[in-house]
This record gives sequence, structure tokens and C-alpha cells, in this order.
Amino acid sequence: MKLTILFGGASFEHEISIVSAITLKEKLSEFDLSFVFCDQDHSFYLIEDSKMKAVTFSKGEHKKMPKLAISNGAFTQKGMFNSKEHGGVFLNLIHGADGEDGSIAALLDFFSIKYIGPRIDASVFSYDKRYTKWLCDARGIKRVKHEELSVKEHDNIDMPYPIIIKPSCLGSSIGVSIVKEESELDYALDTAFEYDSSVIVEPFLEGVKEYNLAGFMADDKIHFSIVEEPHKGEMLDFEKKYMDFSRSEQALKADISSELETKLKQNFEKVYKNLFEGSLIRCDFFVVNGEVYLNEINPIPGSMANYLFEDFHTSLELLSNSLPHEKRAKVDYEYIHNISKAKGK
Amino acid sequence: MKLTILFGGASFEHEISIVSAITLKEKLSEFDLSFVFCDQDHSFYLIEDSKMKAVTFSKGEHKKMPKLAISNGAFTQKGMFNSKEHGGVFLNLIHGADGEDGSIAALLDFFSIKYIGPRIDASVFSYDKRYTKWLCDARGIKRVKHEELSVKEHDNIDMPYPIIIKPSCLGSSIGVSIVKEESELDYALDTAFEYDSSVIVEPFLEGVKEYNLAGFMADDKIHFSIVEEPHKGEMLDFEKKYMDFSRSEQALKADISSELETKLKQNFEKVYKNLFEGSLIRCDFFVVNGEVYLNEINPIPGSMANYLFEDFHTSLELLSNSLPHEKRAKVDYEYIHNISKAKGK
Repeated sequence: MKLTILFGGASFEHEISIVSAITLKEKLSEFDLSFVFCDQDHSFYLIEDSKMKAVTFSKGEHKKMPKLAISNGAFTQKGMFNSKEHGGVFLNLIHGADGEDGSIAALLDFFSIKYIGPRIDASVFSYDKRYTKWLCDARGIKRVKHEELSVKEHDNIDMPYPIIIKPSCLGSSIGVSIVKEESELDYALDTAFEYDSSVIVEPFLEGVKEYNLAGFMADDKIHFSIVEEPHKGEMLDFEKKYMDFSRSEQALKADISSELETKLKQNFEKVYKNLFEGSLIRCDFFVVNGEVYLNEINPIPGSMANYLFEDFHTSLELLSNSLPHEKRAKVDYEYIHNISKAKGK
Repeated sequence: MKLTILFGGASFEHEISIVSAITLKEKLSEFDLSFVFCDQDHSFYLIEDSKMKAVTFSKGEHKKMPKLAISNGAFTQKGMFNSKEHGGVFLNLIHGADGEDGSIAALLDFFSIKYIGPRIDASVFSYDKRYTKWLCDARGIKRVKHEELSVKEHDNIDMPYPIIIKPSCLGSSIGVSIVKEESELDYALDTAFEYDSSVIVEPFLEGVKEYNLAGFMADDKIHFSIVEEPHKGEMLDFEKKYMDFSRSEQALKADISSELETKLKQNFEKVYKNLFEGSLIRCDFFVVNGEVYLNEINPIPGSMANYLFEDFHTSLELLSNSLPHEKRAKVDYEYIHNISKAKGK
């Protein structure tokens, strides 16, 4: 099966998207894979298989490869005398801005290119942590309480320490700090506001259990991954982050009761249904006193959370064959004809 | 001042977007206007001023005009030997799908084209009436209670007649029915589901007062239009709809207390702030027993609600000069360099 991996993007997560793509190249070797890179200037390049290495991009060597333009139904490589089309199904693997904020979704939808990834509305509700809270409230999903701060107004935080400070719109723990006392607050806020003009404050829950669950809809039902209890350091540094996005070894199943597993799946389904169709997402949950709280939705998880699926290859094939159909309005100008008639013209 | 009006779109509201654009051509004659048409196949055309008539499009004559491609910073007209760029500020006047669902916003943002219109997240919260309700709940704005129906599950409506049935995602009263008794229900549902797979049911509030208020943010404050009490027929037919989108005569101020006017403005501000920056929107409110309820947000109102502004020309100029700045992440490959170093390569 043919599949094109779209990665890069003008995002703070640009580089881990490259790591993710390289990981999937190995993991999905049974597919007929192609690679399209979006650079930080929003130009697209077709990357040779053999050049799928981090240094290709850090050295700017991608600029020597064929440039692509997006057009109806495909990415097009223009030659002197003819042009070559790169169509088929795309996998949106651009983490963070562009990929997860709805831009790439809109672009691919607008140009009728089929893709795995969150649609525009799903992107908005997962990219901005404030809107994830709204989604939770509307769909009866428990979530951690929070306060919102803006660059202009962030004087009073009405929450006891320790607290956690996060930019509203970034994943991969970029710009996130745990603040144990007031003396650490200013630095944490400066860090977070470097990445976003809006910041979220939450209580830092010590000793909480964390569980990750991924899944996708195909053939009208949700296919779940195993549940994993992720390894926790207090904060991820670049090496740990790299580990996270380059993971390809099957994870261990968390040792939890079937009752808790069912609860996690029910919450996943509440998040997913009628919103995330077409995408494979990972939900990160907290469990406190047996109650399940949604912490975060990763609509394009690092290396597509391949390590959580017992048969990742088949899973992705299933999803590729169950992508939502686009419904486009047909224009017949009946309305204008009616007006013209009514005006006697 | 140069301004390009972008209109059309693959939308049930394609034709009224044409009417809107023709209206603005007259209304904004002091601007140096250009017109870019998006046809139902998502091709773009540069339309000559003299051809800005409804028949140009209903007869397909736009296809003879220069075709444009979207590229970084501008729409480009490719010639045999060189290409011509159409840049500057755009006004997104595509009503309904494409224009109001976040697609055009994403496209223009992605290609760094400046525009008046709702951004991606603002689009999602105004295009789908279900998400407008979530916005209201999160921001403490009163709204009419509702039920959601999907094509698959719409057997039991737990609300006394009369009720109003609306597709979740359409404006301009397309697909909307008032249902007075059960015998009328099936037809109303069929009509609504023709336009969307999700439908909203609300109580039909008889004798409610309706008020419309438009506004936009410029120089850090909201500039309001007058408040209008719109003329109500029970339902709009095509002629009334045409009247609505081709309005250019200054509307009459509603005869309301300054207290109610303040309340309407406060509610408008709750909707607008930190979401709709860059756009001129019209909020349609209901007033019941002195309480203000948000009925609908029009993020691209018909003919930009020009008739509500005492000086529409100056208003649009102000807004054009206060558009949000795009912040794009800079990629320096520090992370990949660090990994390479850590690996000893």
C-alpha cells in the first residue's frame, strides 16, 4: 500500500517531527512509502528514501531535492516540459504548529488530498489546551482545574504551590515548568510566554498515576491500543524527548484492572467520537482515587504511538481505508437565476 | 488603500457570497479594490471590475479570466514568460463552507497572506452551532438550550413543540425549519440532514426580541456598530435572503435603553476577545425578560454588515491596519545537533 509521510513544519516541534518520520520509515517498511518535507518557510520537498536522515535537514540538503507545489488532488513536481503528481493517502506527521493547529488539515481538505490526521475542528480542540477543557466540560469528561493567564494579565494566580505552568498551545513538554514556590514563578512564566501569548496554570498533582491509550476509528468502531503507564521523570530533557519520538519497541501493558481499562476506553471514546474521525490519537490520562481525568490529547502522537499497537502496520492500513469522505456543496446558480427572473431580467 | 475581496467558495452559500461581493464593490468604492473568485472546484480567478455581475459566474464566464495560484505572500498569475503577484490585504467574504469553517483562514495564514476574517479557531467556534454553545458556556454567555441529533440517532427529541431544527453548520437560514407539531418533524429533519450530518434542535421562542450588533477590534479596543432590531418574517425566502446580502442602506438604530445596549456590548466583547481578532463579526442576540442570549455569531456577515456602521469605509480601514501578526517558530536544528553530539557523531 502506498503512503506518503508529510513532516517538518514551521513549528517548535519541527525537529522532533523529523525524528518521528525517520522512526516510521523503519516501522512501516511494508508500505510503499514516500516522504514530503515542509520546511520552515512552508516550501514542500520530495525527499529520497536514502536521504531520510536528520543531517539532511540540519545541513539544508533538502533544498537540492525536488520542490513540490500543492494543487487539486496531489502535490505536483513541475519539470521543464511536464509535471509529475504525488497523490494517494498522506500521513500528517507534522507535530505542533501547522500540523496540529488545523492548517495542514485545511490545506489537504481544500485541495482534496486524502490524509490520516485530525480535521480542522479536532485540531482546534486538541492543539489549544484551553479548548480541550471546553471539550471535556461539554462531553462530561473529568479534567484538571485550571487558570488562564495572558501576557497582559498574569499577576494573580489563585492556586497553592506546587503548580504547573504550560503554554496553551504546545505539546512535547516544551515551555512547561513545575513551580514549587513563588520565587520560581517569574522564570517559569517568562519561559512559557516565550512560546505562546496564553498560558495555563494547573495544580501539580504529586503521586498521580498516568496512563496513555491510543486508538482510531475504522469500520465504524474504535480500535484501541494497549494501555501504557509511561515512565515519568519530573521533566523531559532533549534526550528523553528524542527517546519518546523515536520509540519503536512494543511497550509493556500497564498492570491495571479490567475495570480501569474499560473506564479509560470509555473516556477515550467520549473524546474521539464525532470529532477525531480520520486520525489516530493518543489520550494521556491521570487517575486519582480511581477517577479518570483527561490530561492531554495528542492528535498526532510522536512516531504515531506505534509502540502501543500490537500490529501497527495492519492498524494503519485499516485506518487508511476508513478515512472520512469529504462532502462538497454543488453550486447550480439556481438562486441567482431566481433573482434574475424575479427582477425580470 | 488597496484591498482584495475573496469570494465564492464550494459552499451552499456560494451564490450569496457573489451577491455580497457585488454589494461591497459599490460600498467600498473609495478603496483600490480587486476581486478574486474561488469557484466550486477550488480554482481561483482574478475578476475584472466590469465583470462583477452575478451572470458572469452563473454563465461560467469567470473561466475565461486569469487563473491564480496561491503561493507564499500572494496569489500568483502565471504567464508564459513571467508571473504577476496579487498581494496586499485580502477580505475573506466567502460565506459558509470554506470561508467560515477555517479552511480559507488556514490557507491564507499558511501562505502568509494578510486578511480580514476569522482565524482558524474563531471559525470553528462560530461555524458549528454546537461549538458556539460550548464557547458560551465557557465564557459565561447565556444561550438557548439545545439538543444534538445525528443522522444515525434522531428518534427522541425531548422538547415540547414548537421547535426549531437547524443543520449544525450552516448560516443564512439554509435548511432551517420551525416545527409546530410532530407531523411536520420528518420533513424538517430530512431537509436539515440534507445539509449536515449533525442537527441542532432548539425551542422556538415566540415573541422574543432580536437584536444584531457588529464590531471589530482595532488599536486594542472594540469598535461597535449601531444595534439593529432586524425585520422578522417567520422564515427567509430567497428574495429576503438576497435583500439581506445586498443591503447597503444605513440601518435604523433600535429603540432600546442604554442599559440594554451596554449589556449587548458586554456580551459581544465576551464572544470576541482573544478569539475573533482580525475579523469584523455580527452577533445576533435574543432578549427574553431583559436577559441577553447569544443566538448566533456571523464571523463573515452578509455584505460585512456595512449597513450597521455609520462610517463603514473608515471602519474597514481601521481594521485593515490592526490585523494580528503571525508568529512563526524559527527552526535552528539545535535539538538535532544536540542528539548528534550526544551520539558522538
